[in-house]
Amino acid sequence: MSTPAATAPDVATAPAALVPGLTRALAARCAALRYTDLPPPVRLLARQCLLDWIGVALAGACEPLVHMLAEEAREQGGHAQATVIGHALATSSRQAALINGAASHALDYDDVNMACTGHPSVALIPALLALAETRGASGRDFLTAFVAGYETMCRIGRTSGDAQYARGFHTTATLGTLGSAAACAHLLGLDADDTATALGIASTMAAGLKSMFGTMCKPLHAGRASADGLHAALLAARGFTSRPDALECPQGLIATHGGTPSLDIALAAPAGGWHLHHNLFKFHAACYGTHAAIEAARQLRTQHQLTPANIAHVQVRVGASSEGVCNIPEPRTGLEAKFSLRHTVAMALAGVDTAGLDAYADEAVGQPEVAALRQRITVELVPECPGLTLSEVIVHTANDATLRQQHDSGRPTSDLQAQQQRLEEKFHRLVDPVFGAAQSARLITLVAQLDELSDLSPLAGMLATPASCCAD
Amino acid sequence: MSTPAATAPDVATAPAALVPGLTRALAARCAALRYTDLPPPVRLLARQCLLDWIGVALAGACEPLVHMLAEEAREQGGHAQATVIGHALATSSRQAALINGAASHALDYDDVNMACTGHPSVALIPALLALAETRGASGRDFLTAFVAGYETMCRIGRTSGDAQYARGFHTTATLGTLGSAAACAHLLGLDADDTATALGIASTMAAGLKSMFGTMCKPLHAGRASADGLHAALLAARGFTSRPDALECPQGLIATHGGTPSLDIALAAPAGGWHLHHNLFKFHAACYGTHAAIEAARQLRTQHQLTPANIAHVQVRVGASSEGVCNIPEPRTGLEAKFSLRHTVAMALAGVDTAGLDAYADEAVGQPEVAALRQRITVELVPECPGLTLSEVIVHTANDATLRQQHDSGRPTSDLQAQQQRLEEKFHRLVDPVFGAAQSARLITLVAQLDELSDLSPLAGMLATPASCCAD
Repeated sequence: MSTPAATAPDVATAPAALVPGLTRALAARCAALRYTDLPPPVRLLARQCLLDWIGVALAGACEPLVHMLAEEAREQGGHAQATVIGHALATSSRQAALINGAASHALDYDDVNMACTGHPSVALIPALLALAETRGASGRDFLTAFVAGYETMCRIGRTSGDAQYARGFHTTATLGTLGSAAACAHLLGLDADDTATALGIASTMAAGLKSMFGTMCKPLHAGRASADGLHAALLAARGFTSRPDALECPQGLIATHGGTPSLDIALAAPAGGWHLHHNLFKFHAACYGTHAAIEAARQLRTQHQLTPANIAHVQVRVGASSEGVCNIPEPRTGLEAKFSLRHTVAMALAGVDTAGLDAYADEAVGQPEVAALRQRITVELVPECPGLTLSEVIVHTANDATLRQQHDSGRPTSDLQAQQQRLEEKFHRLVDPVFGAAQSARLITLVAQLDELSDLSPLAGMLATPASCCAD
Repeated sequence: MSTPAATAPDVATAPAALVPGLTRALAARCAALRYTDLPPPVRLLARQCLLDWIGVALAGACEPLVHMLAEEAREQGGHAQATVIGHALATSSRQAALINGAASHALDYDDVNMACTGHPSVALIPALLALAETRGASGRDFLTAFVAGYETMCRIGRTSGDAQYARGFHTTATLGTLGSAAACAHLLGLDADDTATALGIASTMAAGLKSMFGTMCKPLHAGRASADGLHAALLAARGFTSRPDALECPQGLIATHGGTPSLDIALAAPAGGWHLHHNLFKFHAACYGTHAAIEAARQLRTQHQLTPANIAHVQVRVGASSEGVCNIPEPRTGLEAKFSLRHTVAMALAGVDTAGLDAYADEAVGQPEVAALRQRITVELVPECPGLTLSEVIVHTANDATLRQQHDSGRPTSDLQAQQQRLEEKFHRLVDPVFGAAQSARLITLVAQLDELSDLSPLAGMLATPASCCAD
């Protein structure tokens, strides 16, 4: 029988020898995690995620779409529970999660984990920050809940992420809703059963289409994932009911959105034991699918002193999955440029700084040298090349030389201190124009001390400062 | 190329001879509808939908899940813009739509349209009522927007509803989000382009799994559809961007959720010219998939003076799609009983009043005579039988007679005055225990006068009265 009630495993009374269902097993892992379980590098990585998230959220806070969401929240009203970052607005926790999530994904500059085929931090942190602020949670509570949600999101991603993405779902949105629910359930102290319920409620809320890339709906997805996951956890805490097997049940999340439910695949330990070790930070302000090609192009330019004038033609060889993700051939706006392999490679070969936000202003898209070079770039989809992180760039020079460079942007660094340095540089670059260098430095210090904060009000207080460009 | 920007039809500059895309065509139809376009029977049907919706929402307002959502809304806060029906609570328009939508679907007693494979009123009316109350819209504005949303939802349903439902999506949730967006876009006075944007935003918000039936998430779906559709329309009105072809584009709503985009199918005129003519009201408080079998069983009982004692065995023959919808074999709760063909047919054959809410109390599920009769009922899935509205009940009596009765619950009545009478009886039955008979009668009169109301404050005022059972 395929009826909900008939097939829902009665986990409370299941014999101990029975392998528990996927949803319940993930919920149990999530609920059991403690701060003392986290090795120091995992704690550092979690703080790096927070630092990077604050930077991209503050830089994104001035985007028009964020103002629209903030104005809508003002019109709806809400208790002043949680900070809307960079705006003079405190609102209800769910609305703050929505707006901050959208702000942090607005620039497509936030971090990535390939295990969930998407962006964990923008789904997890906005909800956790709003909830921690509302409930007065400590820095350690926050970090532990973040890691619990992060690992849960990636575990689900392993068994469902690529398939969902291929089918047309924006996994940052769909899996992000589940990750946010797991993280918030952890911060609320829910047990395994209630966490499974939260995952169930989140499963039936999960939505977001990849075909929306290039519109304001893409960043909206991150905000909705975060806010909906928070809502799911809050409802589960109130006793709202759902299925305890929503991921793997017939016509459950995986059956309807893609993937094959597998406990073994979901729980397989990643190298180093934690998915967080495989978090990839962005150092170019464009879709991650363009990063390998940008890096390859930068290397060729530097090694061979290339200029647009001595480039005859360029081939960019990428996996077939780039189509529909980052292959807008003729971008018309800065937003579209971030999803254009031709444009970003042209920028890199022309020496434009792809890390700077100015490079993606609408006016910059038509810059003659870049636009002309773009016309000499051909993107070749290579069916046998998997994923979005491998690229080869082949430059045919004006004097008939052929130069080749490959790059894999899917490998995380093992030098966490060097990564910290690079992240702090990125942070200053994003936040100094908004808050000034002194406040940026104070924020970096505060995040470094997160484990010792008894509550997050010092952080929230600093983030509540209106950004210079949107003191509304 | 499959990039959003490259394939989005530039509708503003498209030659007139070009057939516009599905989304844009539906948006144009929606935006163009005027009150004067509505024939009197369509206006009456719209008022009947509102009356029936108020009844089921008030009766559902006392359900535990509604209290949980209301408490959550109180904790989040919000401007007192819109009435939460039957609770002493006015909150933000989106939260009111969420709660009232869930309340009105909580009892599974709300109306149905097979063209959208779901329940239009519970998705449309909560958002429209909240928006009309917030913005001071007239009764005529409300009715016209309702019809615009209703027809849009059913048109999308024709090209996508059955396929979505078969794939595991709860179309009341997914298509309801689009219907609500269309209705709210109409009430906000959005033009065709902005209405298409609202449909685009709604497409990427649309979610809800059929596997949640039997849990509190099912009614939650209706509330979320309503609230999210409202949010989509409000964001479109603010200039938020989306695709103008979100339904039919590659990896758009239809490609990811089911169906085949077809302008011809979507716009094919239903008999009588309006989908509203095919609205089916419920007169049994259970899943609509059980109604044909209940009616057939009632007829057999009456015609042959059946009692449980003289029934040896019963076959219930239904379409194969009943599996996973309304075929819980051994319901353990009142909620599950509503999704159990075996149980509802047992109730009907035992003479239990299937229209009364008391019959679906948790305590009633184990009633010995019904439970014993249920054990003698077999459900047979008939692969060649389409849909959920055709059933045959075959009773084998204790003295070896075989009695057969078929029923089709998918045919709406053409006698709208008789239907009005039956709806008013249902309304009194649901609302008298909540508000008393005098207030019920006043509500019936007020809905009958809706076309003449310059704003909805008289109606909202009456609905704001706390229900006797949940004066919280």
